[in-house]
Amino acid sequence: MANQKKLVTAITSRDTDFAQWYTDIVTKAELVSYTGVKGCLAIRPYGWAIWENIQRILNDMFKATGHENVSMPMFIPEGLLQKEKDHVEGFAPEVAWVTLGGAEELTERLCVRPTSETLFCEHYAQIIKSHRDLPKLYNQWCSVVRWEKTTRPFLRSREFHWQEGHTAHATADDAIAETERMLDIYAEFAEKYLNMPVIKGRKTESDKFAGAVATYAIEALMHDGKSLQAGTSHYFGDGFARAFEIQYADKNNTLQYVHQTSWGVSTRLIGGLIMTHGDDDGLVLPPAIAPIQVAIIPVQAQKEGVLDKAREIADTLTKAGVRVKLDDSDNSPGWKFAEYEMKGVPLRIEIGPRDIAEGKCMSARRDTREKQPLSLDGLTAEIPQILEKIGHNIYNKALENRSARYYTVETESDITKAFADKGDGYAEGDWCGSEECEKAVKEATGAGSRSIIGDGHNGTGKCIHCGKTAKHTVIWAKAY
Amino acid sequence: MANQKKLVTAITSRDTDFAQWYTDIVTKAELVSYTGVKGCLAIRPYGWAIWENIQRILNDMFKATGHENVSMPMFIPEGLLQKEKDHVEGFAPEVAWVTLGGAEELTERLCVRPTSETLFCEHYAQIIKSHRDLPKLYNQWCSVVRWEKTTRPFLRSREFHWQEGHTAHATADDAIAETERMLDIYAEFAEKYLNMPVIKGRKTESDKFAGAVATYAIEALMHDGKSLQAGTSHYFGDGFARAFEIQYADKNNTLQYVHQTSWGVSTRLIGGLIMTHGDDDGLVLPPAIAPIQVAIIPVQAQKEGVLDKAREIADTLTKAGVRVKLDDSDNSPGWKFAEYEMKGVPLRIEIGPRDIAEGKCMSARRDTREKQPLSLDGLTAEIPQILEKIGHNIYNKALENRSARYYTVETESDITKAFADKGDGYAEGDWCGSEECEKAVKEATGAGSRSIIGDGHNGTGKCIHCGKTAKHTVIWAKAY
Repeated sequence: MANQKKLVTAITSRDTDFAQWYTDIVTKAELVSYTGVKGCLAIRPYGWAIWENIQRILNDMFKATGHENVSMPMFIPEGLLQKEKDHVEGFAPEVAWVTLGGAEELTERLCVRPTSETLFCEHYAQIIKSHRDLPKLYNQWCSVVRWEKTTRPFLRSREFHWQEGHTAHATADDAIAETERMLDIYAEFAEKYLNMPVIKGRKTESDKFAGAVATYAIEALMHDGKSLQAGTSHYFGDGFARAFEIQYADKNNTLQYVHQTSWGVSTRLIGGLIMTHGDDDGLVLPPAIAPIQVAIIPVQAQKEGVLDKAREIADTLTKAGVRVKLDDSDNSPGWKFAEYEMKGVPLRIEIGPRDIAEGKCMSARRDTREKQPLSLDGLTAEIPQILEKIGHNIYNKALENRSARYYTVETESDITKAFADKGDGYAEGDWCGSEECEKAVKEATGAGSRSIIGDGHNGTGKCIHCGKTAKHTVIWAKAY
Repeated sequence: MANQKKLVTAITSRDTDFAQWYTDIVTKAELVSYTGVKGCLAIRPYGWAIWENIQRILNDMFKATGHENVSMPMFIPEGLLQKEKDHVEGFAPEVAWVTLGGAEELTERLCVRPTSETLFCEHYAQIIKSHRDLPKLYNQWCSVVRWEKTTRPFLRSREFHWQEGHTAHATADDAIAETERMLDIYAEFAEKYLNMPVIKGRKTESDKFAGAVATYAIEALMHDGKSLQAGTSHYFGDGFARAFEIQYADKNNTLQYVHQTSWGVSTRLIGGLIMTHGDDDGLVLPPAIAPIQVAIIPVQAQKEGVLDKAREIADTLTKAGVRVKLDDSDNSPGWKFAEYEMKGVPLRIEIGPRDIAEGKCMSARRDTREKQPLSLDGLTAEIPQILEKIGHNIYNKALENRSARYYTVETESDITKAFADKGDGYAEGDWCGSEECEKAVKEATGAGSRSIIGDGHNGTGKCIHCGKTAKHTVIWAKAY
């Protein structure tokens, strides 16, 4: 079949050209389509359904920890963006500016939000008066715009979808606890629902968010040995509060500045799960967020009773809470097998006349390719268990990949050697804390400081570049 | 209490100044807050939760009728917007233009989408090849921007949230059926879940969507006798398909143009339900979309067992699927009563030591103010029934308001007379179909043609302005 051949030949091998393999997947699995505006994607039904599943689970986790959803405007007046000095310096170079409304030139130009700290601050200054108003634990789901020069679907685009949490607290301790809580939620979400192992840590000064006191992040190692920053949580202290005059009357009626945080994850997570789990036949989706968890393929569908049985199974599983697609189109079973493999559907069920006669169906796991007959009677109990096993298995595979590429290094040349011998990955090494050494390591090895994970004494206690006493232990890696 | 007084005195009476009453409600009930950009609102947790409930129900209705969600970019290149002549003429005067990305002037300016027909058409031209690809039934939830001169929260804002469905079909009949199906879904949603009676009809030529062959709409009469266009469904024929070259190979392998539709409802619906159901004490929310359906207020909360019992009731109702808020703050019960009345919570439950001793609680309906003791044993059965009754009652009240203000007229002066005697409302009258008469009626009476609901023979069969043979029966009304 022409179509089947196309599916099989169209994907570049992951080990031949990882970047092209990625591009092939996002288009051939029908996640996205390009548009006339560089870096702005049409996200197709299958891609958007993944994002909706991510949203649903995360949203429940946010609500369970007391957060409320709101919606701020998409425009920020230039004067508002400029109120916090570091913040505007960080973002102004990469924003899109609206200068005309209808035919009229605007008296003050508006940027399309690259992030919404300034808007939340303006709002908090209006609505926070008393300690009784605190904490404010707000979140919004929206898209933001950053005018990037080079773009890649999901990983770096000019418009991208995300959630941004913005919270205000009475004390620094409360705000720090929130920053840590949300980092933990991101790590739990990534590991439990995306089956993607992550490392939690703090960003160095050079890499922290514009306006933050401290930025925490989760980092995940992709199949090619590069690191992906998959979520960030920022502690602001009272810097924004002072710039925006956000004050509350405490119990003694004294005015105090609030302490703030912000935190976000984006559609970048979709890029992360592609590069963590995908293989040469296409996507491999975590069962928790797969739009289709089970694809049912009738075999010899024209034979009496086959389609009826397939529909019955689909109904039963749907009622049991499994996301099912019965493909009763007139494409061949072989074409369908390749199609749902490409789309990363965790489990396939084949059902034909002989299976029905035996009260069974054949199942095929996307992750292991393992085929196993299943009794039709036990499907609603069996399938959720198999899906759970698939999730555990792909998590473990990703963890093994990371463990095999996790190097403890004493000098920066150890990094170069480990990457050359065993492939790119994470190099754990101590660091003196100077920006010069950080840059030098990156120039020499290609690996930047991804995350501070210790106090400088995990290894030799000496900086891997200059040999002086270390302050931090850092994981070094090439990064997306 | 200072706060209580403030709540009671701050709302302008609905009959004194309807516009000010509306503004008071949207701010005092904490639905929105203004920002530094005119016409762009911060939608607060309580307002956004209403929209999320609307989204959830409508989204399920869309999915049940085979629609899929996608996400198109927020930017439209000027050249793309210009591809369909009528469309660009309709929208270009009111769009916001991005002219700078970072520091660089763009070679082609981008408008922030006022609606996304052009983007969907560009996408459909890429992905539709064969009759097997049809229909495409896509929808997206997003915000759009129209640079309006005068703005009012929810009713007319520069940025507003909505859903926009965009579909492509093999035949005109299929597309027309879709246009009608979605109009029916909007009407069903408005009446069943917003408890807002609507009239379905077609827009006149002067009022139809830019680029449409026909525009259908649902119209709802607000408390003040003005009509609100609450949702629209457009049939495009193959006009966009020809402009954007969207063709498919039919079963004989001949290229055909697709036929298209689009349809949308927005946060305007929130404005509609405020002006349909609200009263001088604040919002009255339809139970189906109320963020809080039942507010539980402990009385003499310091007495032993009161808070425990209140929590037990809250848990029981939550488990039964009721959206409950237990207010155990130290505000007085009277303050809380006023607060949840302002916020339009459909049902209040008061529980104190005496109630507990008697195995009862007191309930108070927001719509009728009726107080009724309820047995604690039967709450999970009783409360959903009461909520349903409230929904029916507010629907009937709105329908009575509309019936009392629905006039059958023979001439345009009948409209002026009816509005003067009995108040603004809907005037049903026949019309010859000429744009001159349509304008003349509006100038003479203030009432525009809201909807074509008949073939010109509902009344005298003569145009209410010129007296010539009528082609259409129209409802005439002042409008938002």
